[in-house]
Amino acid sequence: MKIAICGYGNLGRGVECAVTAAKDMELFAVFTKRDPKSVKVATDVPVYNIDDILKYKDDIDVLVICAGSATDLPVMTPSLAKDFCVIDSFDTHASIPSHFAATDKAAKEGDKLALISAGWDPGMFSVNRLYSSAILPKGKDYTFWGKGVSQGHSDAIRRIAGVVDARQYTIPIESALEAVRSGKNPEFTTREKHLREYFVVAEDGADKARIENEIKTMPNYFANYDTIVHFITMEELKRDHSGIPHGGFVIRTGETGYSGENKHVIEYSLKLDSNPEFTASVITAYARAVCKMYKRGVRGCVTVFDVAPADLSPLSAEEIRATML
Amino acid sequence: MKIAICGYGNLGRGVECAVTAAKDMELFAVFTKRDPKSVKVATDVPVYNIDDILKYKDDIDVLVICAGSATDLPVMTPSLAKDFCVIDSFDTHASIPSHFAATDKAAKEGDKLALISAGWDPGMFSVNRLYSSAILPKGKDYTFWGKGVSQGHSDAIRRIAGVVDARQYTIPIESALEAVRSGKNPEFTTREKHLREYFVVAEDGADKARIENEIKTMPNYFANYDTIVHFITMEELKRDHSGIPHGGFVIRTGETGYSGENKHVIEYSLKLDSNPEFTASVITAYARAVCKMYKRGVRGCVTVFDVAPADLSPLSAEEIRATML
Repeated sequence: MKIAICGYGNLGRGVECAVTAAKDMELFAVFTKRDPKSVKVATDVPVYNIDDILKYKDDIDVLVICAGSATDLPVMTPSLAKDFCVIDSFDTHASIPSHFAATDKAAKEGDKLALISAGWDPGMFSVNRLYSSAILPKGKDYTFWGKGVSQGHSDAIRRIAGVVDARQYTIPIESALEAVRSGKNPEFTTREKHLREYFVVAEDGADKARIENEIKTMPNYFANYDTIVHFITMEELKRDHSGIPHGGFVIRTGETGYSGENKHVIEYSLKLDSNPEFTASVITAYARAVCKMYKRGVRGCVTVFDVAPADLSPLSAEEIRATML
Repeated sequence: MKIAICGYGNLGRGVECAVTAAKDMELFAVFTKRDPKSVKVATDVPVYNIDDILKYKDDIDVLVICAGSATDLPVMTPSLAKDFCVIDSFDTHASIPSHFAATDKAAKEGDKLALISAGWDPGMFSVNRLYSSAILPKGKDYTFWGKGVSQGHSDAIRRIAGVVDARQYTIPIESALEAVRSGKNPEFTTREKHLREYFVVAEDGADKARIENEIKTMPNYFANYDTIVHFITMEELKRDHSGIPHGGFVIRTGETGYSGENKHVIEYSLKLDSNPEFTASVITAYARAVCKMYKRGVRGCVTVFDVAPADLSPLSAEEIRATML
């Protein structure tokens, strides 16, 4: 199956690497809004300008759209879904219904298949929330994120006067995780589930107390959290905080029996060295499913909820049953 | 959707409870090999003899077959799949391909849909092995079981002369779990992954040293494990070991990047107060999927690998996308 990538940032680079490693996939091209000559790819795949993409309509089985959820994907995914089978990692949870509707309409018009919101949250975490709630209808879900770098929040801190660079980690609070696992069905405030830790490089002579106060009181970001601020040097930031790790936990506790006498805990967790590379790996597996489902006649927009696990694997149904069931 | 249960042991009782709790399901009947009058069910569902089951061919959407994998299911599932949509929890891993083939043939002959090997292992653990290996093709899987009661092994100990009753727990070795989570890709012997703990009630005056030695050297069961044997009273056994807890861990560690420079850990775990009730809850969710898939025209035999998560839920596609994605 021939895969193309549209957008070449961290996520696009991750998809390039994952597709290259898949024996049943071939990377056809990278498409970019920039001057193709200015884009240095990691492999020898050709780079084309996005304006030329329709020329390659018949050469691509699945187009992986690697762009931002805020403004790019709501336009790009429906637009491209008319001419290509597409997959994206749209992650603005509240806007998923409208993004789904627009993409479904476009894909049906073009007789194509689109899959939106692949990745780990939304994505693998969503799938686990669904499985667990279907199995244990009497129960309660908890999602914790981290320990990991929140790139958007790191950006927010960099806009504070006197900050040269910064990294923000979201950290799940261990005692909250333990309370959930114990089956106590706790109710948490925002502050009780996660704390936020900052590593900040300040300008020489900057007022660190003021910077710390601005971080801790930033509305919509950090005001509702307990925060730990560390001022470090640029060397330390580069040495100790250059990765983009992330992860988290989806836990459902529930009960069975006529009076709920038996308790059960289902826990799914991820510990990721590279958030974009793992997300890209999930997307690549779902691109395989898009290809298989399109060949079987599935059209319109689907999500991870509509994909049978077998469609993600390069192995045959017989091999899977014999080795993994 | 109308569900019937065939076989009324621990698992059948669990399905009865789970179906009763599901708002979109109705429990039609329990079928038994025994005299129906001798079977006391927990609800007011009618009990019929299995010999009369064909009378109810048109009244049942999905028949849940709750019987043993050793001798019953290999005969019952293919036989019933000709006339009913069926689901079972066949768990003899090595015989899955032949059980699948026989059931697939029967279901296709009868224009029905069958799902085999639902539960947690095979079942949810299998699904997690498949998802994780598709996402991280360069990686390694580990499955640990426990802490939990192995009912077959408990039975084996009871056959030793001088043993009145016994309970055997399989316990994953914490240091092995930690070695896996650290991404070291360890290779384990049987002895290094699990240990086995026994609680044995001996006859008055029995030779405990001989019993302990017979347990520890029992071939195919315990000879390859480190074992801990406790002799307790019948009162202690009943007080402290009457439950049927189980659980376990499926962990995949893998790497991404052109030189495998980024490591990732995906972990799925279960902690279950009641093994049969949880298994029954999984089967009940998959019975819902069998019903939906049959209505869409799917025929023959399928497994958990072929079921899209959305089909397990009583919620609509719109509700799922809005609340869980």
